[in-house]
Amino acid sequence: MTVQVLVNGKPGHEISVFDRGLQYGDGLFETLKIVQGRALFWDRHMDRLERGCERLGLSSLPRNALWQEAEPLVQNLARGVLKLIVTRGEGERGYQPPQQAQGTRIWVVQAAPAYPPTNAQEGVRIRFCETRLGHNPRLAGIKHLNRLEQVLARAEWDDPEIAEGLMLDGQDNVIEGVMSNLFVVSRGHLLTPDLSQCGVAGVIREWVLETVAKLGMVCRECPVSQAMVNTAEELFLTNSLMGIWPVRQLEAHPLAVGPVTRRLQKALEEVYG
Amino acid sequence: MTVQVLVNGKPGHEISVFDRGLQYGDGLFETLKIVQGRALFWDRHMDRLERGCERLGLSSLPRNALWQEAEPLVQNLARGVLKLIVTRGEGERGYQPPQQAQGTRIWVVQAAPAYPPTNAQEGVRIRFCETRLGHNPRLAGIKHLNRLEQVLARAEWDDPEIAEGLMLDGQDNVIEGVMSNLFVVSRGHLLTPDLSQCGVAGVIREWVLETVAKLGMVCRECPVSQAMVNTAEELFLTNSLMGIWPVRQLEAHPLAVGPVTRRLQKALEEVYG
Repeated sequence: MTVQVLVNGKPGHEISVFDRGLQYGDGLFETLKIVQGRALFWDRHMDRLERGCERLGLSSLPRNALWQEAEPLVQNLARGVLKLIVTRGEGERGYQPPQQAQGTRIWVVQAAPAYPPTNAQEGVRIRFCETRLGHNPRLAGIKHLNRLEQVLARAEWDDPEIAEGLMLDGQDNVIEGVMSNLFVVSRGHLLTPDLSQCGVAGVIREWVLETVAKLGMVCRECPVSQAMVNTAEELFLTNSLMGIWPVRQLEAHPLAVGPVTRRLQKALEEVYG
Repeated sequence: MTVQVLVNGKPGHEISVFDRGLQYGDGLFETLKIVQGRALFWDRHMDRLERGCERLGLSSLPRNALWQEAEPLVQNLARGVLKLIVTRGEGERGYQPPQQAQGTRIWVVQAAPAYPPTNAQEGVRIRFCETRLGHNPRLAGIKHLNRLEQVLARAEWDDPEIAEGLMLDGQDNVIEGVMSNLFVVSRGHLLTPDLSQCGVAGVIREWVLETVAKLGMVCRECPVSQAMVNTAEELFLTNSLMGIWPVRQLEAHPLAVGPVTRRLQKALEEVYG
């Protein structure tokens, strides 16, 4: 498929070198899964974007105006990825945000990533990364453009058999995957790492946290140690494009795909329709 | 003066939205002071850029090729700022760095910032920022494009009487200014914060560390507490465009401009010529 790009409402592939998105990573992004012209979990993505704008003091268009721009790009698309980047726009030299910033918004529509269907069916192999996540409560949870930690972590391996890497913080807590959130079934309890200090609060992670309650289960957000991950009964990973991937091997340690993972996968498939 | 921009050797103000500098802050920058067509501390800036490239696994042109591009932009310039941004260039979707990345290099020549001459002569007023610096030893010291912590810290005040804000890490160590490095004379000892966990190792900071030895002084890189800063005999700030600014007031606490600061200012003026 052809890649389509819209910058501030106009077709075009370029932005100014003075855009603070480039200069400082001063912005946010969202990556949405498109199925049959629908942007899945649109409102959850927009909720997170708005939380991020509030945190950074950015302004953005209201979500209905954003959808008016995006809809013509995806309405005839059976499957694909819709990425939105929102930056503070152009600025003068220096870190101080301009008072009258005209934000930049960029839409990119691309083909869906070619993940093997076995990833969701049979599970994936993953590893631990050396690169750590720094603590910053003011940036934790939001999907901002400062992503060097993820870039360095992802550069640690190029074995295509390894689908994902787990990242720890400086205090040896397991936080998330490079591109996904982590869930752990440990001694019969479903857990996911606390993201108050670092990490990205994913849209599917949020959906899981709400859905378990409806299924009569409990999921606790708490510190997760490497030992808890290494001795888990089940591990699974979530993100908007992947959905839910069971982990079948962590480093040299094999895992079975368990009932909690399967139940949530089934519930998510019903949402995808 | 007219702002001049060169992108990969060609005049133009735009880069691709697929550039990883925008997508992830996957790049580095240097800000050089131009005086009479000379780029001050060129080799120190290029040393840091090369250290940053090594850390991130980026490739860049050799420094003589970079100077061939930059020299025509600045050779007739009496005073100004030369900024270089180097990114990993365009990439496909996802954090994994492309194997055959064609880096992007951007030169921007702008007017020198209009700092009041009293800043260097009489000193500046500064404050403490609330925004903390997260720890990441793999990113500490280099001048990368992930600068949201600085953006948030600089957004904390807009009183033009406050020239700079000091940033702490999560363990309450004072690390640096938003745009500068900090030196402290405490109980007769010259100190500057250790930057092994976070912070930018500035070019003038490096010059001070080398120059004190030539002047028969000692400067120690070590953890610096808020108490040490609050009770200091002298405080000064350094960066490539400012040079050395004494601090005459930190929050409500006045300071005298002391002999160590004046001696280093004088030595730096000799370099500037």
